[in-house]
Amino acid sequence: MVAPLKVGLAGLGTVGGSVAQLLHRQESNAPESNVLGARCGRPVRLVAVSAKAESEMQALGIPGLRWVASPQALATDPEIDAFVELMGGEGDPAKSAIEAALSSGKPVVTANKALIARHGVALATLAERSGAALNFEAAVGGAIPVVKTLREGFAGNSFDRVYGILNGTCNYILSRMESEKLSFADCLREAQRLGYAEANPTFDVDGHDTAQKIAILASLAFGVQVDPDAVYVEGISSITPEDLAAAAELGYRIKLLGVAVRTESGIEQRVHPTMVRLDSPLAQVMGVTNAVTIDPAGFSPITLVGPGAGGAATASAVVADLADIARGARVRPFARPVADLAGSRRAPMQRHEGGYYIRLLAVDRPGTFATIARHLADEQISLESIVQRRRNGGPHGGDDPDGTQSPAPIILVTYATTEDAVRKALREIKNRGVIAGNPQVIRIEKN
Amino acid sequence: MVAPLKVGLAGLGTVGGSVAQLLHRQESNAPESNVLGARCGRPVRLVAVSAKAESEMQALGIPGLRWVASPQALATDPEIDAFVELMGGEGDPAKSAIEAALSSGKPVVTANKALIARHGVALATLAERSGAALNFEAAVGGAIPVVKTLREGFAGNSFDRVYGILNGTCNYILSRMESEKLSFADCLREAQRLGYAEANPTFDVDGHDTAQKIAILASLAFGVQVDPDAVYVEGISSITPEDLAAAAELGYRIKLLGVAVRTESGIEQRVHPTMVRLDSPLAQVMGVTNAVTIDPAGFSPITLVGPGAGGAATASAVVADLADIARGARVRPFARPVADLAGSRRAPMQRHEGGYYIRLLAVDRPGTFATIARHLADEQISLESIVQRRRNGGPHGGDDPDGTQSPAPIILVTYATTEDAVRKALREIKNRGVIAGNPQVIRIEKN
Repeated sequence: MVAPLKVGLAGLGTVGGSVAQLLHRQESNAPESNVLGARCGRPVRLVAVSAKAESEMQALGIPGLRWVASPQALATDPEIDAFVELMGGEGDPAKSAIEAALSSGKPVVTANKALIARHGVALATLAERSGAALNFEAAVGGAIPVVKTLREGFAGNSFDRVYGILNGTCNYILSRMESEKLSFADCLREAQRLGYAEANPTFDVDGHDTAQKIAILASLAFGVQVDPDAVYVEGISSITPEDLAAAAELGYRIKLLGVAVRTESGIEQRVHPTMVRLDSPLAQVMGVTNAVTIDPAGFSPITLVGPGAGGAATASAVVADLADIARGARVRPFARPVADLAGSRRAPMQRHEGGYYIRLLAVDRPGTFATIARHLADEQISLESIVQRRRNGGPHGGDDPDGTQSPAPIILVTYATTEDAVRKALREIKNRGVIAGNPQVIRIEKN
Repeated sequence: MVAPLKVGLAGLGTVGGSVAQLLHRQESNAPESNVLGARCGRPVRLVAVSAKAESEMQALGIPGLRWVASPQALATDPEIDAFVELMGGEGDPAKSAIEAALSSGKPVVTANKALIARHGVALATLAERSGAALNFEAAVGGAIPVVKTLREGFAGNSFDRVYGILNGTCNYILSRMESEKLSFADCLREAQRLGYAEANPTFDVDGHDTAQKIAILASLAFGVQVDPDAVYVEGISSITPEDLAAAAELGYRIKLLGVAVRTESGIEQRVHPTMVRLDSPLAQVMGVTNAVTIDPAGFSPITLVGPGAGGAATASAVVADLADIARGARVRPFARPVADLAGSRRAPMQRHEGGYYIRLLAVDRPGTFATIARHLADEQISLESIVQRRRNGGPHGGDDPDGTQSPAPIILVTYATTEDAVRKALREIKNRGVIAGNPQVIRIEKN
C-alpha cells in the first residue's frame, strides 16, 4: 500500500473525539476490514492532535498520538499531510490555524460553518493560491452529503432554488409545538432540558445558524460569494400553536427554512418561518432531522434528508472529506474559481414575490371584513383562502367575561403578490382600527 | 484555460441527445456562463459521436461533430479523452466498446445498468488495470447522486442497509392503484398509454430492473461483487387494490423496494413488494419518483429523493461523471479494489426474518379462525394486528346470490418471524381447507 495520509486534528469536542475514534478504529482493523483505507487506496492515519488540554488527548485512549499545544503549529507541522479543524468559532485560533495550513499548501477539513460563512472567500483564495483543498461537508447538514452534491453532483447544471431545514433545534421545537400544542417558550425549555437547544438559544432560534448554512449553499449553487450578511433573517419565536394548527388545516406545515433562489433581481437569500405544502418532502421532516431540496433548471427536484448534527454523523462527513484528500481529489472550495464568484448582496425583501399566510385579530363590528378586503384589493392582492370561525357561542366572536366581544381571528392565504403590497395593505388595515395587535405574516414557499 | 476534455459519445437516444445538447450549450456560452467549464477547471467538449444512423447526429444541429460509424472505433479514437456509452444493452456493441476504451486507458461514463450489473466486476478489473475511470452514476436513480454518495460520501462508514424505490414505472402503478382504486392490469395499461411503461413491461413490473440497480448499490455499500443473480426477485403483479387499502388502514404503504441488508448469514439482496410505514420517507414517494435510504452503522438514515429517469435528469448524472474525469478524480468503480470485493451469493429467503402481512380468504364455517390461529402458533408466529370485517350483511361473510356465504378476507400482520415459518404455517392452513385460493404474503420492512 502507498504512504498513509497523516492527519493532524485540532479540537477534541464531540465531533473531534468521534473523528479520532473513527480513524483509530479503521487503522486498528485487519487490513481487509479497513474500509476507509480500501476506499482511499491508502491508510488515513491520525498522528497528532491539539486541544484545550493535553488530558483530552489522553482521555481518547488512542496510543501513539503526538501532542501539539498550538493549533497553528499543528497546522504547519511538517509531519502532517492534512489538517482537520474542529475547534469552532469564526475567529482565532481556528481562523489563523486554517490560514497557516492553506498558506503552506496543506489541505484542510473543517466543520466550522461560522468561519466558512464569514471568511470563506478569503480562505478559498488562499486555498486556490497554494492548490490545497478546503473541504467543509460537515459545516452544513451534518452527515447529509449536500456540499459534495452541489459541488460535484450537478456539474453541468444551473439551479433555480436551493432550500431546506438546516437547524435541528428549530425543527424540533416546531415539530413539538405542533404535535403537543405547546407554546414556543415551553418547547424551547423542553428542548434545552433534553440538550437539543443551547443555554443561549438565540443563535439557533433567531435563524442565524440557518443563515450561515444557506449562505454556504447559495455560494455553491449559484456561484456567489458566501456572505451571511446578504441573508434576510427572521426567527421562529413569533410562531404560535394557532399558526401551526391553521397551517395544517390549510394543507401546510410551518418550517424554518433557509432559501436561496434565483430571481430577476439576483440571488435572493433568506431565512424565515415558511409555510410548505403538507405533501412536500420538507413537510415530512420532523424533529432534529435536516433536509435540503435542490431545484435544478430543467428537471424535478432532488431532496436529501438526514441527521444534521451529532458526533458520529458529523464525523462521518469530516472523514469523507479526508478521504477525498487521500485520493487526491481536486475540487475548488466553492466549485468555481474565486475570481468567478459574483458579489452577494442582500435582496430587497420588499420586492419578494410569493404567497402569504396572514393571521389577524379582527375587531367585532360591522364593516370590519369589508375594510380588510378593500385594502387588500387596493394592493391587487387576491385571496386563495379565508378562514374565520365563530368563537365560543357568538356568531362573530366570543363573549368576554365583561360582556364585550373579543376580537376574532381571521386567517387569509394570498395568491402570489409582493411583500411590499402585503405590508402596505396591513399598515392601512391597522390604521383603520379594525384589527387588534399586530398581524402575523408567514411567507409561503411553493414546491 | 487548460486543454479541454474531448468526449466521444456513442448512442443518441433521449439521454444521449440530452447529454450532447447540455455539453454544446455550455460550450456555446460566454466563458463566464460556462458553469461546467468553471467547475471543472477546463472545458468539456463533445467532439465525436456514434449512433445507429448518421442522420441522428445531423438532427442534433450541433456543428463540428465528427461521425464515427463504429462505437468500438470511437471508444479507442486517439482524438478523444473520454468515452460515453449510452447505447444500452448488456451485450455488444456496448460491452465491447467499453472494454476497448478501458483497455486502452480511456475513462468511460455509462448509464447502462444492465451492463454494469452483469459485467461490472470484469469491467472494473479492466479499469483498475489501466487506471481508467469507470463512472455509472446515471445507471441507478437517474439524477439522484446515490452512486457518488455511496462511493465517496461515507468513506469511513459501514452500512447496515441500503434500500429504495428504484423503478419509476412500478411506483407510478402502485401510486395510481392506491389513489384510484384500480387493478394492476388497468394501471399498467394507463402507464403504457402515458409512456411510463414499456410495451413489454415485464422487465420493470417483474422487478428485474430494480434487481440490477440494487445489485449495483449493494456492491458499492457492502463491498460484494455486483451480481443480479444474487438478488431474490418478486414483482408487483399480484398486488390488489384491497392490499393497498388494507396497508393504509394498518399504517403502511406498499412499495416495490430493492433491499440490500447485512444479516448474520451475509448480505441479503432482494426485490419484492414491501410494506413500509406511512411515516417513513420512502412511503411519501409517489409517482415516477425514485428514492434511496442509506442506513449507516452508528447514526440515523440518509434518504435521497429525486427523478429516476428522463433525458435531462439522466444527462445531468452523465455530465457530472464527465466532470469528475475532467478534474482527474480517481475513485475505483466499486469504491474498493476489485480484489477486495467479496463473492455475492443469493440469500436463502426461507431464512429471511421480518414481519409479514398476510391476506387470506377464510371459508365461513365454525372453527376456521381457530384453525388458522393454531397453525400460526405452532410456528411460533405472533400477531401484531388482525382485521376481519363483516361483509355486506352477514356477520362473518356476505351472502352470495345462491344463498351460500362467500369467503371473508382476513388480514394478519405478524411480528418478526422467519419466511420459513410463515410458508409452513400457510401450507398447513391451506391443507386444512379453511381458506379459498392462495394467501397473499407481503414482507414488512422496518424503518
